[in-house]
Amino acid sequence: MNKFAMFGKLTAHSGKREELVSLMLEASRSLNDMEGCELYIINESVDDPDVIWVTELWHDAQAHADSLKNEQVLSVIQQAKPLIAGVEPIRIRPVGGKGLGV
Amino acid sequence: MNKFAMFGKLTAHSGKREELVSLMLEASRSLNDMEGCELYIINESVDDPDVIWVTELWHDAQAHADSLKNEQVLSVIQQAKPLIAGVEPIRIRPVGGKGLGV
Repeated sequence: MNKFAMFGKLTAHSGKREELVSLMLEASRSLNDMEGCELYIINESVDDPDVIWVTELWHDAQAHADSLKNEQVLSVIQQAKPLIAGVEPIRIRPVGGKGLGV
Repeated sequence: MNKFAMFGKLTAHSGKREELVSLMLEASRSLNDMEGCELYIINESVDDPDVIWVTELWHDAQAHADSLKNEQVLSVIQQAKPLIAGVEPIRIRPVGGKGLGV
């Protein structure tokens, strides 16, 4: 099991979450053709109106690293930066379960 | 979009994470046939040796509520209780992205 996963917490500047969600959805579309990307789900926090959580699952760490060299992804990151007040990943190691696709 | 999702944080009593992971994997097998359960991935925290994170995605809140009435699930919960020091869900609302299966 070499899968690579994280829960990515993005805190938007106050009032900017909706705009950031739109950008992240755009980013996720550019990942649709990327085989190594297995999950990239954009979620809004229920309890914090400024927070987005991204459920990320990659075939392996290399697939994730490669995605960060993708031009479309880099372009979205540049556009998103001014909207983001903070980034805080929860680093996790998938072990098994339903939907892991092993 | 009525999907129901959460990141479930389970903190095991010191030294009990491995045992708790085994039980959670057993629980996840009983969810394989449950259509309303779309993701139930067991992850170990990279940074905290006592912590498990469960990536949960359900067709809707009702599917999640129904699962908690399932006999096998209830049995695993009973077995897991003595191993668990704390439970802390991060409540999220899926918006879109890769792997959401909408």
